[in-house]
Amino acid sequence: MRSTNKYWGFIKDPIHGYVRITDFEKKIIDTRPFQRMRRIKQLAATFLVYPAANHTRFEHSLGTMYLAGILGEALPIGLNDGSVAELRLACLLHDIGHGPLSHLFEPLLSKYANKTHEDMTNWLIDNSVISDVLNRGGFETKRIARLAVGRLRDKDSPYLDQVIRSAVDVDKMDFIVRDSYHTGAGYGYVDIFRLIYTMDILNNNLAVDATALSALEAFLLARLESFKAIYFHRASRAAQIMLLKAMEQAKDELGILDFSTPEDYLKLDDYSIWHMLKQCEKSKLIMEKLENRKLLKCVYEKTFYIKDQLVTSIFDNEAVRKKIEGEIASKAGIEKDLVTIDVPSLPSVPYHYAIDFDPMNIPIFSKNNKGEKKPLQITELSKIIDSLRVFINIVRVYTEDLHRNKVQKASEEVFGKAPLSSLVSY
Amino acid sequence: MRSTNKYWGFIKDPIHGYVRITDFEKKIIDTRPFQRMRRIKQLAATFLVYPAANHTRFEHSLGTMYLAGILGEALPIGLNDGSVAELRLACLLHDIGHGPLSHLFEPLLSKYANKTHEDMTNWLIDNSVISDVLNRGGFETKRIARLAVGRLRDKDSPYLDQVIRSAVDVDKMDFIVRDSYHTGAGYGYVDIFRLIYTMDILNNNLAVDATALSALEAFLLARLESFKAIYFHRASRAAQIMLLKAMEQAKDELGILDFSTPEDYLKLDDYSIWHMLKQCEKSKLIMEKLENRKLLKCVYEKTFYIKDQLVTSIFDNEAVRKKIEGEIASKAGIEKDLVTIDVPSLPSVPYHYAIDFDPMNIPIFSKNNKGEKKPLQITELSKIIDSLRVFINIVRVYTEDLHRNKVQKASEEVFGKAPLSSLVSY
Amino acid sequence: MRSTNKYWGFIKDPIHGYVRITDFEKKIIDTRPFQRMRRIKQLAATFLVYPAANHTRFEHSLGTMYLAGILGEALPIGLNDGSVAELRLACLLHDIGHGPLSHLFEPLLSKYANKTHEDMTNWLIDNSVISDVLNRGGFETKRIARLAVGRLRDKDSPYLDQVIRSAVDVDKMDFIVRDSYHTGAGYGYVDIFRLIYTMDILNNNLAVDATALSALEAFLLARLESFKAIYFHRASRAAQIMLLKAMEQAKDELGILDFSTPEDYLKLDDYSIWHMLKQCEKSKLIMEKLENRKLLKCVYEKTFYIKDQLVTSIFDNEAVRKKIEGEIASKAGIEKDLVTIDVPSLPSVPYHYAIDFDPMNIPIFSKNNKGEKKPLQITELSKIIDSLRVFINIVRVYTEDLHRNKVQKASEEVFGKAPLSSLVSY
Amino acid sequence: MRSTNKYWGFIKDPIHGYVRITDFEKKIIDTRPFQRMRRIKQLAATFLVYPAANHTRFEHSLGTMYLAGILGEALPIGLNDGSVAELRLACLLHDIGHGPLSHLFEPLLSKYANKTHEDMTNWLIDNSVISDVLNRGGFETKRIARLAVGRLRDKDSPYLDQVIRSAVDVDKMDFIVRDSYHTGAGYGYVDIFRLIYTMDILNNNLAVDATALSALEAFLLARLESFKAIYFHRASRAAQIMLLKAMEQAKDELGILDFSTPEDYLKLDDYSIWHMLKQCEKSKLIMEKLENRKLLKCVYEKTFYIKDQLVTSIFDNEAVRKKIEGEIASKAGIEKDLVTIDVPSLPSVPYHYAIDFDPMNIPIFSKNNKGEKKPLQITELSKIIDSLRVFINIVRVYTEDLHRNKVQKASEEVFGKAPLSSLVSY
Repeated sequence: MRSTNKYWGFIKDPIHGYVRITDFEKKIIDTRPFQRMRRIKQLAATFLVYPAANHTRFEHSLGTMYLAGILGEALPIGLNDGSVAELRLACLLHDIGHGPLSHLFEPLLSKYANKTHEDMTNWLIDNSVISDVLNRGGFETKRIARLAVGRLRDKDSPYLDQVIRSAVDVDKMDFIVRDSYHTGAGYGYVDIFRLIYTMDILNNNLAVDATALSALEAFLLARLESFKAIYFHRASRAAQIMLLKAMEQAKDELGILDFSTPEDYLKLDDYSIWHMLKQCEKSKLIMEKLENRKLLKCVYEKTFYIKDQLVTSIFDNEAVRKKIEGEIASKAGIEKDLVTIDVPSLPSVPYHYAIDFDPMNIPIFSKNNKGEKKPLQITELSKIIDSLRVFINIVRVYTEDLHRNKVQKASEEVFGKAPLSSLVSY
Repeated sequence: MRSTNKYWGFIKDPIHGYVRITDFEKKIIDTRPFQRMRRIKQLAATFLVYPAANHTRFEHSLGTMYLAGILGEALPIGLNDGSVAELRLACLLHDIGHGPLSHLFEPLLSKYANKTHEDMTNWLIDNSVISDVLNRGGFETKRIARLAVGRLRDKDSPYLDQVIRSAVDVDKMDFIVRDSYHTGAGYGYVDIFRLIYTMDILNNNLAVDATALSALEAFLLARLESFKAIYFHRASRAAQIMLLKAMEQAKDELGILDFSTPEDYLKLDDYSIWHMLKQCEKSKLIMEKLENRKLLKCVYEKTFYIKDQLVTSIFDNEAVRKKIEGEIASKAGIEKDLVTIDVPSLPSVPYHYAIDFDPMNIPIFSKNNKGEKKPLQITELSKIIDSLRVFINIVRVYTEDLHRNKVQKASEEVFGKAPLSSLVSY
Repeated sequence: MRSTNKYWGFIKDPIHGYVRITDFEKKIIDTRPFQRMRRIKQLAATFLVYPAANHTRFEHSLGTMYLAGILGEALPIGLNDGSVAELRLACLLHDIGHGPLSHLFEPLLSKYANKTHEDMTNWLIDNSVISDVLNRGGFETKRIARLAVGRLRDKDSPYLDQVIRSAVDVDKMDFIVRDSYHTGAGYGYVDIFRLIYTMDILNNNLAVDATALSALEAFLLARLESFKAIYFHRASRAAQIMLLKAMEQAKDELGILDFSTPEDYLKLDDYSIWHMLKQCEKSKLIMEKLENRKLLKCVYEKTFYIKDQLVTSIFDNEAVRKKIEGEIASKAGIEKDLVTIDVPSLPSVPYHYAIDFDPMNIPIFSKNNKGEKKPLQITELSKIIDSLRVFINIVRVYTEDLHRNKVQKASEEVFGKAPLSSLVSY
Repeated sequence: MRSTNKYWGFIKDPIHGYVRITDFEKKIIDTRPFQRMRRIKQLAATFLVYPAANHTRFEHSLGTMYLAGILGEALPIGLNDGSVAELRLACLLHDIGHGPLSHLFEPLLSKYANKTHEDMTNWLIDNSVISDVLNRGGFETKRIARLAVGRLRDKDSPYLDQVIRSAVDVDKMDFIVRDSYHTGAGYGYVDIFRLIYTMDILNNNLAVDATALSALEAFLLARLESFKAIYFHRASRAAQIMLLKAMEQAKDELGILDFSTPEDYLKLDDYSIWHMLKQCEKSKLIMEKLENRKLLKCVYEKTFYIKDQLVTSIFDNEAVRKKIEGEIASKAGIEKDLVTIDVPSLPSVPYHYAIDFDPMNIPIFSKNNKGEKKPLQITELSKIIDSLRVFINIVRVYTEDLHRNKVQKASEEVFGKAPLSSLVSY
């Protein structure tokens, strides 16, 4: 057994109780890149709606590691200690690349650096002090780096990636329960241990036992409800739009995208970005509004539950959005940048990747009396899961309180008077 | 204000905390018919699967009263104190008519007395000491008796019945949360207060605010999952079949259906029936098996998610079932009464009435800025709720452990070899 | 590894989540003596005060086994698998000897059979079907039987007994958390895992790490509060007095103490005794009052917090009590048996053995940097624990509602007018 | 009724569920001084020990308001709506004056501005936008400002101050439950509603009903355990010492104590101070260590449980501490400022005022059958509370990891070799 398996002690977590960590994991945890996650909230600006949602990626990462360890040990194929240790480390590090304000930084990364936070995670594991620690512990840095973002792509064991990145991975299991605990939103008390204790490997893929179908349905519903109640919440989105705009306007002056070394990138966190945006002339007005909770108002909303992404594709095109914003502003007789069209299926949505996976593709099996696994079709088992495979494309128009009525009227003209039902969604 | 509103004190409930009750409610609670509910488990034989599911209709009744009071006071139409007091009393008493082993007694009541437990509730409120207490308190006994079973049928205020008996009534709200608490099954932490605090009256009906749609979806899913994980659980059904059979076989000797006075009926409770069934020659063998947890084994299972009730109708016919049981037994070469076909959508299912209501008929509204309510179509709002409008018709064949293989084979021949998926459902 | 270690599956417990059990443990659980505990409430008549306190010794036994397993595996001395298996089995079986109504049956056992429930546990393990199962599994029946009641008395490993029976054993850990969960009384959310994960063996004794002192103090306070809030509760004691009296009066007619075989004894449970007491002429009146919640009233109460047990000794003498009861009744001008003096430190108190252990004797240690343990004096560490080493001797006089005033007056005359403070205790 | 009583809606809190707020309270909440509390953690640097302890004074203030409303309405003296509204507002605002890092800023405020955070609260309510809002709502600003810090000192109703500031005030009730929820430390699930629902006014003072004595004992123990497990935690104190030192060293350069207007003071929050301390040459090294979790190490510790504050008084004198630090450093052969003596009963302890109140002075009463209250002596009722009246004076010596051994040795020489027991405290 590697010396990396010696236990250091426990960290107390309100979700999972005593989380046992090894001496080696403690070394990773005590690095600067990892400690920085204490200053990156899990849910960016959601605290403006759910005031207790101040939890950070630090404790979420510990929780994800914890669940990975339990799943790794429970899998009937008998993973060896080394593999479990790797899974735990990869999960511990999976969010290390997040920028300030988590997913709010994602569109900037994408637009100006052509990166995702997963790319950054991979890069940081491989190029920061983390790499040194991993090497000294005898781990393959590049392997951990790829596994941390679910891109190990080992042909013989795709399930390793799936523990971390799939429709029912330990990352989502942790954040669904954790976000619910801290927001107080009451849908997330999912029986994740029923899933974990019954999971198995089916044709090299991580698969769900049909006896846990109820837990799976509840998990997928919780995932969906969390999108609606937390991540897509009207006021929460308003704050996100404002913060994104502040960052866009201030980025050149603050140089927040001019990082070339891990050291530079790691300087950015929720605290520093918030403080700098308040100092910067270009963004200080927006920050003042945020600090007075003067949020943009949603004056128009239409929800599409259709399964093709046509609508999204249209709005995903920034030029198209800008054009329509201009049209509405012009009809309302106000300046163009006072109108914002929000389509929260854009990458700025926290956990956008959480909906990358079609729940209908989750491998399911049943075991007969002899313990043999047979694959099942989820479609034959659950109508509910089918209905959860929904695309939520919400189109909203936001403006300032002052221009509320004008912009509402103009939006309705531009989009066509929406049927009443579309004005309400949750 | 009536003297009936004076507070007596609090009862501590693990679900709702301190439940405040009035002097008058205390008088009702301290009657024998009400106290008897301490000896009637909420979930009959479910404790054989979830060992901590020993909660009773007594505390459920207190909880239902508590929620009725909160909803009654929160409704924006401003119910007067008298109406709220009536709602609380009716909810307090709504389960008083349950026979021993709760819903397990239902098919006997139906078959031999042509009654439901609601009929018994109505009868007991009107013909026991409860009636005297209510009269002395200045309440209309018959009105409370009808309201307790949701059959007040007041044309101007149908919502009164709906508080107690509808797809989202306080009865279901309490038991979904409570059953989950005591079983440990993790799906029932539904945000019922979101529903309660936003409910309103729409065209005289109790209606759900569209802003609580997420809570409604979670509530309806929890209702469905509770059916699958608790009420329809394979082993739990096995125990129920055995107890039902024991009661059927012993009923004449024990005279358990020969009650003519409330006094007679009230003698029956979980304790007395369990003890008597052990004494009675006709049922003691079954009870011995139950006390050794030798349950019937399910050897065949097929689930139908279809929306017409054709299948149920067929199996609902006892003669048809008996004929098929005989056929299977004959093929298996064993005696006829060693084979039992179970179709748990029959009235013996606890809370069968809980699926009387089509969720698609729940009135939903949205409020505009001026506070005006507009009705919405739930179909346009939620695909999930549509998928939850499911009929679960499960057909199972049970037999004793000894005859397992033979009966499995015979069942497959009779029903046609089932597709694999149908052998697994949850 | 013995075949007895193969896992059968999980049982869902609301306190501990998924409790994993082996094939062999399943065999023990499915015996009649074990299943009978489903019909023995953990807290006898406490449900009359806390209506949701309907949990049974069945699930408490599972929980105790679960904690024993965790503690056994966590102990730094590295217990082998066989020892952990024995500890789990012993804990599983530790309450099997309880009579109907749990501790309420204890004084009868003591008075008429000169036994305790621990004696019965020992006897049943050794003389029922349990013994056969244990033997077939290769376990030493007598060893498990002694360990189950903490009387293995192995000189080299006294800690084995202490896991099950000491001031901080897994039995108490489970019931403090569990009783709190089901009553709703809010003191029992003790951090028992802090104790478990840091415990160690010090000079062959189970010892508490000084770093868990806070958890220990909270645990001991919870133990004390549970006595006051639950076990010594005025109304709960009233019901217990009534049930005890009913059993005493009916015992000859019902023959409830005439058991000679395990089979006879096992027929007694909460259901059967309750039903029989209602049938028996000698006890039916009391049972009728209980079923109408017409409890005896406490008209006098005095609490002694002194550390010698003088007062108890006096009242512990039945003849003395009877004499004073007669004196009070005579002064009140009513019949002698209408007055009951209750001193709830008598053996009828549930968990009386829970206060057998002086908390000041709990071994405590601290570890230095090298991991060496040094014994500490608890007296130097915690004043709180010293204050928790309290003897609560409560003297109460009960009578029927009708004679309340007369008996109150007579009691005050007999005992001397109590200082006001003594009339209130919690 | 004032228009200030119109309900705006609910805020979801994980502790108290739906917290109802009025239109007027919403206006206060949406001001900048109130919103700023979102950026002031409740427990300063405790997140370095309990990673999920990221909750802020914002949600604590909402919770305190919520409990004040419930207590205000439950008090049997029948407070009028106006008084309850005032109490709620005062509680909402009671923490508004906290500096960055909460209580860590307290010693700086005291030393350089001769103020406490309560003075700042009073000042801000009276001199910021809060004052305008209160005036427009028809409230007396100065009255609310005094009540918010428990200094209304109304001779006829001292209980008003006591709701907010006493040994069992709603402030402590909220934070004990809340801190426990977010840290995961398991002692804080106190039955605060038992206290609230039974409290009454006794001779114009807020008093506890003797029937809630168990809840009171548990509450006071939880308060004590929270000090030991959270506020006085060795590593948590290390971080606090470092942050305090950083602020002291950087204060002139950053001008963090040069505020003259509310506007200036309100600029300071956890985010801004953290960021500025990282920028400032004088403090950046300490911040770097904190961000790498290189905390000072505690090399010596002695706990005094004596009741006079002699020891504290000595160490409370900065000159004395400095002298001893110098002596130890000199013996260890290192620079003076590498040694820090910490006596966490100094004002830098969060909630230091929480121990201002002697629990033995809590007014207690019992009610007789006629509802008359009689005062009781807590000393006669509870030995436990007496033992909780403890002064914890801990003396610790901290230094850097590098100098650990030398400083440990030097400390022992200076203080005299401590008895082993003193090296361990919890």
